[in-house]
Amino acid sequence: MRAIPGTPFDPVEDGDKLKEECGVFGVTGVSDAANFVALGLHALQHRGQEAGGIVTYDPEQGFNSARRFGYVRDNFTRADVMATLPGAIGIGHVRYSTAGSKGATAIRDVQPFFGEFSMGGAAIAHNGNLTNAAQLRKELIERGSIFQSSSDSECIIHLMARSIQKNIAERIKDALRRVEGAFSVVAMTRTKLIGVRDPHGVRPLVLGRIGDSGWALSSETCALDIIGAEFVREIEPGEMVVIEGNKVESTRPFNQAPSRFCIFEQVYFSRPDSILQGRSVYETRRQIGVELAKEAPVEADLVCPVPDSGTPAAIGYSQQSGIPYAMGIIRNQYMGRTFIEPTDAIRNMGVRLKLNVNRALIRGKRVILVDDSVVRGTTSRKIKDMILDAGAAEVHFRIASPPTAWPCFYGVDTPERSKLLAATMTEDEMRDWIGVDSLKFISLDGLYRAAGEAAGRDPKSPKFCDACFSGEYPIAPSDKIAEGFEMKAAE
Amino acid sequence: MRAIPGTPFDPVEDGDKLKEECGVFGVTGVSDAANFVALGLHALQHRGQEAGGIVTYDPEQGFNSARRFGYVRDNFTRADVMATLPGAIGIGHVRYSTAGSKGATAIRDVQPFFGEFSMGGAAIAHNGNLTNAAQLRKELIERGSIFQSSSDSECIIHLMARSIQKNIAERIKDALRRVEGAFSVVAMTRTKLIGVRDPHGVRPLVLGRIGDSGWALSSETCALDIIGAEFVREIEPGEMVVIEGNKVESTRPFNQAPSRFCIFEQVYFSRPDSILQGRSVYETRRQIGVELAKEAPVEADLVCPVPDSGTPAAIGYSQQSGIPYAMGIIRNQYMGRTFIEPTDAIRNMGVRLKLNVNRALIRGKRVILVDDSVVRGTTSRKIKDMILDAGAAEVHFRIASPPTAWPCFYGVDTPERSKLLAATMTEDEMRDWIGVDSLKFISLDGLYRAAGEAAGRDPKSPKFCDACFSGEYPIAPSDKIAEGFEMKAAE
Amino acid sequence: MRAIPGTPFDPVEDGDKLKEECGVFGVTGVSDAANFVALGLHALQHRGQEAGGIVTYDPEQGFNSARRFGYVRDNFTRADVMATLPGAIGIGHVRYSTAGSKGATAIRDVQPFFGEFSMGGAAIAHNGNLTNAAQLRKELIERGSIFQSSSDSECIIHLMARSIQKNIAERIKDALRRVEGAFSVVAMTRTKLIGVRDPHGVRPLVLGRIGDSGWALSSETCALDIIGAEFVREIEPGEMVVIEGNKVESTRPFNQAPSRFCIFEQVYFSRPDSILQGRSVYETRRQIGVELAKEAPVEADLVCPVPDSGTPAAIGYSQQSGIPYAMGIIRNQYMGRTFIEPTDAIRNMGVRLKLNVNRALIRGKRVILVDDSVVRGTTSRKIKDMILDAGAAEVHFRIASPPTAWPCFYGVDTPERSKLLAATMTEDEMRDWIGVDSLKFISLDGLYRAAGEAAGRDPKSPKFCDACFSGEYPIAPSDKIAEGFEMKAAE
Amino acid sequence: MRAIPGTPFDPVEDGDKLKEECGVFGVTGVSDAANFVALGLHALQHRGQEAGGIVTYDPEQGFNSARRFGYVRDNFTRADVMATLPGAIGIGHVRYSTAGSKGATAIRDVQPFFGEFSMGGAAIAHNGNLTNAAQLRKELIERGSIFQSSSDSECIIHLMARSIQKNIAERIKDALRRVEGAFSVVAMTRTKLIGVRDPHGVRPLVLGRIGDSGWALSSETCALDIIGAEFVREIEPGEMVVIEGNKVESTRPFNQAPSRFCIFEQVYFSRPDSILQGRSVYETRRQIGVELAKEAPVEADLVCPVPDSGTPAAIGYSQQSGIPYAMGIIRNQYMGRTFIEPTDAIRNMGVRLKLNVNRALIRGKRVILVDDSVVRGTTSRKIKDMILDAGAAEVHFRIASPPTAWPCFYGVDTPERSKLLAATMTEDEMRDWIGVDSLKFISLDGLYRAAGEAAGRDPKSPKFCDACFSGEYPIAPSDKIAEGFEMKAAE
Repeated sequence: MRAIPGTPFDPVEDGDKLKEECGVFGVTGVSDAANFVALGLHALQHRGQEAGGIVTYDPEQGFNSARRFGYVRDNFTRADVMATLPGAIGIGHVRYSTAGSKGATAIRDVQPFFGEFSMGGAAIAHNGNLTNAAQLRKELIERGSIFQSSSDSECIIHLMARSIQKNIAERIKDALRRVEGAFSVVAMTRTKLIGVRDPHGVRPLVLGRIGDSGWALSSETCALDIIGAEFVREIEPGEMVVIEGNKVESTRPFNQAPSRFCIFEQVYFSRPDSILQGRSVYETRRQIGVELAKEAPVEADLVCPVPDSGTPAAIGYSQQSGIPYAMGIIRNQYMGRTFIEPTDAIRNMGVRLKLNVNRALIRGKRVILVDDSVVRGTTSRKIKDMILDAGAAEVHFRIASPPTAWPCFYGVDTPERSKLLAATMTEDEMRDWIGVDSLKFISLDGLYRAAGEAAGRDPKSPKFCDACFSGEYPIAPSDKIAEGFEMKAAE
Repeated sequence: MRAIPGTPFDPVEDGDKLKEECGVFGVTGVSDAANFVALGLHALQHRGQEAGGIVTYDPEQGFNSARRFGYVRDNFTRADVMATLPGAIGIGHVRYSTAGSKGATAIRDVQPFFGEFSMGGAAIAHNGNLTNAAQLRKELIERGSIFQSSSDSECIIHLMARSIQKNIAERIKDALRRVEGAFSVVAMTRTKLIGVRDPHGVRPLVLGRIGDSGWALSSETCALDIIGAEFVREIEPGEMVVIEGNKVESTRPFNQAPSRFCIFEQVYFSRPDSILQGRSVYETRRQIGVELAKEAPVEADLVCPVPDSGTPAAIGYSQQSGIPYAMGIIRNQYMGRTFIEPTDAIRNMGVRLKLNVNRALIRGKRVILVDDSVVRGTTSRKIKDMILDAGAAEVHFRIASPPTAWPCFYGVDTPERSKLLAATMTEDEMRDWIGVDSLKFISLDGLYRAAGEAAGRDPKSPKFCDACFSGEYPIAPSDKIAEGFEMKAAE
Repeated sequence: MRAIPGTPFDPVEDGDKLKEECGVFGVTGVSDAANFVALGLHALQHRGQEAGGIVTYDPEQGFNSARRFGYVRDNFTRADVMATLPGAIGIGHVRYSTAGSKGATAIRDVQPFFGEFSMGGAAIAHNGNLTNAAQLRKELIERGSIFQSSSDSECIIHLMARSIQKNIAERIKDALRRVEGAFSVVAMTRTKLIGVRDPHGVRPLVLGRIGDSGWALSSETCALDIIGAEFVREIEPGEMVVIEGNKVESTRPFNQAPSRFCIFEQVYFSRPDSILQGRSVYETRRQIGVELAKEAPVEADLVCPVPDSGTPAAIGYSQQSGIPYAMGIIRNQYMGRTFIEPTDAIRNMGVRLKLNVNRALIRGKRVILVDDSVVRGTTSRKIKDMILDAGAAEVHFRIASPPTAWPCFYGVDTPERSKLLAATMTEDEMRDWIGVDSLKFISLDGLYRAAGEAAGRDPKSPKFCDACFSGEYPIAPSDKIAEGFEMKAAE
Repeated sequence: MRAIPGTPFDPVEDGDKLKEECGVFGVTGVSDAANFVALGLHALQHRGQEAGGIVTYDPEQGFNSARRFGYVRDNFTRADVMATLPGAIGIGHVRYSTAGSKGATAIRDVQPFFGEFSMGGAAIAHNGNLTNAAQLRKELIERGSIFQSSSDSECIIHLMARSIQKNIAERIKDALRRVEGAFSVVAMTRTKLIGVRDPHGVRPLVLGRIGDSGWALSSETCALDIIGAEFVREIEPGEMVVIEGNKVESTRPFNQAPSRFCIFEQVYFSRPDSILQGRSVYETRRQIGVELAKEAPVEADLVCPVPDSGTPAAIGYSQQSGIPYAMGIIRNQYMGRTFIEPTDAIRNMGVRLKLNVNRALIRGKRVILVDDSVVRGTTSRKIKDMILDAGAAEVHFRIASPPTAWPCFYGVDTPERSKLLAATMTEDEMRDWIGVDSLKFISLDGLYRAAGEAAGRDPKSPKFCDACFSGEYPIAPSDKIAEGFEMKAAE
């Protein structure tokens, strides 16, 4: 056995994937809201695996909440926990904890946030990121607000507490008009379920119908499917819906702005069985593979996905190119988040905890590997090593997104710019650094085409937020600029 | 939304999959055996998810063991547990607990079993099932042995204790010559790692090399890959290997018998990245799909696997038929074993905890679903409901194994015969009961061809144990016959 | 065995003891503040057993906190918890959760409370009860404060947040000048440890010296002993001390008021090895027994304490009366808080989980039982049953406090007035209801004498708060009056 | 504050108390045996705090067992545990784990032990120690028995398995006739509850009646009281009782031997509310104090017990001497077994985790401290330091047992002989080493008188086993002698 220079662990833990930071879900008009919310959050677990929280309201028991670290399935399935969450209305949140806030007090950062106002209580759950939260926080503390968390989202509830509106929905409007950034918010009062999307509609939010009397709001449609709810429509950018009983009231509290939905939701974040902008996410991703095969063909024996996120694009690439699709890399389905680091003795052997090569299949073959993105590039190198160690004749990487060269400030956990491989290298340099026979990314135009924009990207008015690829930020990241972040120079 | 008659949960929990009952793994000549064994067992977790155990030996600390319910990743990664398992030699076991033995005392049933003999201690781990265990147990108890478990495997250690041989390896031979059935055994003394396969070689067992000084025995090759060990060869049917230092001694303690490897290992049990009988399991399964497409073609728009076990055959079916492969059903990757039953209110909505249909993809399509097997048929019905509810035009089931009509007595947990759909219905009746447009199983000959027997099955001398399909049991299940089980009448 | 009408369980859990609601502790100038605070809280555990919390500050790690349900010994001894609490300054709190607030969110009620102000953070721990908290809370919410708990003490931190003072110590003064009721507060900033007692000094608070460089503030002196600190002096009623480095600055922020220390601290709450007002609590309690023997003598064979709180008074009673002291009732030292209710089958047998009679000793004897107080009287009845069942000839109860006829609103959990036996019955009626041969309480004058007031109680200007006995409340309970509580009519 | 040379921790954990190793309890003829057994074991917790186990039998569920580390109250009160233990007959055991066997496999050492024989299952629980277990174990292993534990008691069940008797009660007799040492055994079959005491009756065992239909066997009477059972009588030395239905059959399976009940049960092990040999243990201990005051008077101001085991003797000493009894040392009632070691910074302060001096009481006084025994003497030194540090004028130790100079081999955990203070020093040397003004032990005659032998100890035929004081072992410790233990030379 020859020595293996590096060994593949979890690309997500390695910081080699962009991480969606949140999923939100809410229901009203059902007999046991907490169970519905738990199922919805379970279906949204891919949007945040570190922690989750649920708030419900019951006329007799009042507002109740439970917030826990860990998977939904491990917390919000326990009878003792669920028994504390009675009521017919509830909202929930799953999240990643961002670097630095994890520790003894971090449970305070787990949403939903709750506030008791003079007209009653309200809870909010926020997906996205506020780009002026630092300024708002400073101002609120000076005026006597006591923050309980390090989360930017907590600003919203304090702004609501200080609003002079008599009605919670109006207070939410007051608060959200003060914030900048990306937000899909699900909120609740004793009787109302409320959903809002920011003017650009960066993060997703959809409306669903539960039987004849219930409603759901969800980050994605897959969470409607899990509870058997019917997908009604997307909440529109800049729209606020207030649901009470059977009435869904829609208003537009903000100034009009161009729609700029996050294109990375299409590439990676959303689940393949969700529907985004009227199309199956799976189908969009398969189409990315088709475009990629057209843009970057290569002679080879097998097309293999890097599991699991590269699978739909690999299927598309195979179908367009005619090169057989194969499971060249197998993911261990029992992998959890808690596996300890192997000891040195084992590490030196070349441990394959999460992924294993189908050695008998790969030996002697020219292999095309399809992955969703390259962030730091560390995982790509490890996978290449593993494939070559199994005896592949050639390795060609095809990436289902353009080079990721800019950080996201709208609710995605990205490494700082200097850690992004594409921020410091050309495509050829990346190919050499990773050590493969060829490396090709889909073009931004190709990605837009796969996402349904037949004409590709309109540089004057792009339909998506693609700042991570283009460096063009639709909303100025003012806190970050105050900290010294340098925007891309105008061309 | 129309009502959904049944909803798909976990086919494994529903008793609608055959369940391999064990995986075994052992190492010697490494610095920290327990960590290697833990990794090996993690890679074999699909062979037994209920519990696992590890025994190690260290000259200073003696024999130590830890046995736990739950996943390897959750138990044998904890520093406090691993610290109790020092030593350079160790063996381990993962298992399903069979019905009835789960409960307060069942931890006693978790292997490896350990015995202190006058010449020192020994531990054994057994994959398979002894068909004369009940008789042996009765006899041993009458002679004063105290059984600690309800496991058939414990007989082996008591037979060893009563052997008059002076050497543990010889005592193992004495013991195994008394037992009947299927067994792949990994055992250890203070200095020796021992592997044995029963004369028919029903269950797998392979030998691996760790660096220059270590050795591993494993149920499957995928567990060699995880620790970077080199696959040396399969232990042969009827072979015993005794490994001490760098020496591997091979003997044949039993009377010669025809090789009858379990064909269901090829179909479902083994991991697709393992190598069985010199071929990639993935490739054999893909080939089953190719044969199935030849035997049972049908016009359709999409070929979709039932995830995850139907995937390789679906790929093969698509490649042979030219009908596009697609991910029509998505599995929730965060599904654990602990999700509570949904409340009635939610169940009536049609909950989809584990599987969800890619609705936007399936609507209006003629869909071929490829699954590995049909046991009770309950899951197949639920999946059909789910696909139709999403608007499929037609549903055709193609099954990568012949009808499962007989129980296994060699280490696989099968429902009793009356619960097997194929034991009571013809193929057409099954199609109507499941409610699909067509249902076809691969033929036994086709399965043998896919497994490398170009001439199909030789009814005089079949190369595999296929009792679950054919009712032809290579080893008489004597305990079961004593209980009243009726064998297939000779034809 | 004859049937036993009632069986003695835990008088504390039965609501048949008054419960001190809190203990507070803080240190500065030590190497590892959290360990000191944990030990201090452990020594104060009798003041609050439901939950505890610690906040520390470290220049590099900032403020950290941990709040847990359960005993100090079970939480604040775990390396993983303590590692999150670095720093040389820290405060802590133990509490009972009062009825209604226990449940999913109640961990929010566990102190210390923390607030981030524009000049830095501060934490406070409060022993006592604010009698105008409801009014303050309403006002603060209307002005935009968001409360995180149901605790009256949280008002203090919000009042601090809204103060316009530039200095946290000054903000504490601002806040405490707005509150009414009983409070001994320990607070901390990044560099200062602060202690305050309300103008009447209802709850205790003492200052201690740790070696040459450290300081401690504690509810009782026993918590100074556990860490080897030297008892310096009591904080005086109405005094505020601000400790920074080696400097202890004392100020008087409030209007002068007469000292009214809680006399029940002498009778029951404080630990017998603490020093209150210059005397050993044990000695005061023994003296109560001496006074009681003078006031209420009776012929008998044995004087037995109801363990453990009646012990010192029983010793005094025995010494004064010459009747031998004996351990007639034995407490099970392994009793925890978690013992489940016995099943009916067992209950009917007459279970004695916590207390057991020394049957061979008691049989045929005339027994004087000395207890600290009678609240509901339910425990007294059960103990009488148990003693008679063991064959005692006569049972005489002697109580080391006057009849408890009024609820406390200053930080003690008392049943509502209608549940207090002495609020509805005369002494003779109580004797008959409990079913003993005689029942006598110490007089209020006798109690004052035992507590060092040789002349007894001065009705014009009593030295203690004795509202629970006398109905004379030194601070008007304004929230309670607003809810309808009727004060004792002026005589 | 002056430096404190040593600080008192837990004398039990310090190895400065002899430790009873076990308590046994069994019931039959009740509706829910496991709950009764749990209560009984809870009352016997002082006899073994490390672990406990319960076995029950139910006609439908068969035999079930649960064995856990930790207190009874923390394990056998959990609904999930108790639900696994159905049935009307059950036995249980509490134990200390002796040095060396604690660790990953030690749960195997927790009794009761269970064996399945050809005529059905049986479980046994053993209090005591077998002095020929090592020889028996060797012989059994050579004949093919597989031991599951390191416990000497497991020999009994293997001897039973190899008996050729047809009846379990007869097999117990066969087995117990082969063993030597001290044993009080409680055993059960599907229908019988069995109790046996060794011929010398070293360890206690009593019979109780539960209502009209149930029976209990218990190490002590206090465990009968907790379940409301009536104390019937002691099982006699050498007696075996077999209880089935309402019938209690008594036999004498062994050769006659003189009664030698353990005198340390009187001094320390048994609970003060138990009845031993017809007298209250409390009263015997008080009488020891009376004798001690006669034998070793001294002028002083206060008599203080070392809590809690010195309390009854201190009361007796005070009553005889006329010197006032006082609680000079207070024990923290919240002390658990899990408190971590204080950090060095705290240790240097002189931590008092378990015991605290009542400083205001002790200052300037001449104090007599009464303790039950001196083993290593380390605790006595720490307590002396603590008392002197509080300002005592003189410290006089009075010990309620003779000097402990020999190890116990009959079920008590004693340090090896060289660690016993009295094995290497005279009384005067011990006084100087501890550093007190005087130190006196009760004489062996005085102890016998207090225990009811008016004439003192008859050296020809002592009524008790007093080997730990006298070195006269009633049963030869043959395993220990084989290991090299030297008996006291005949005089």
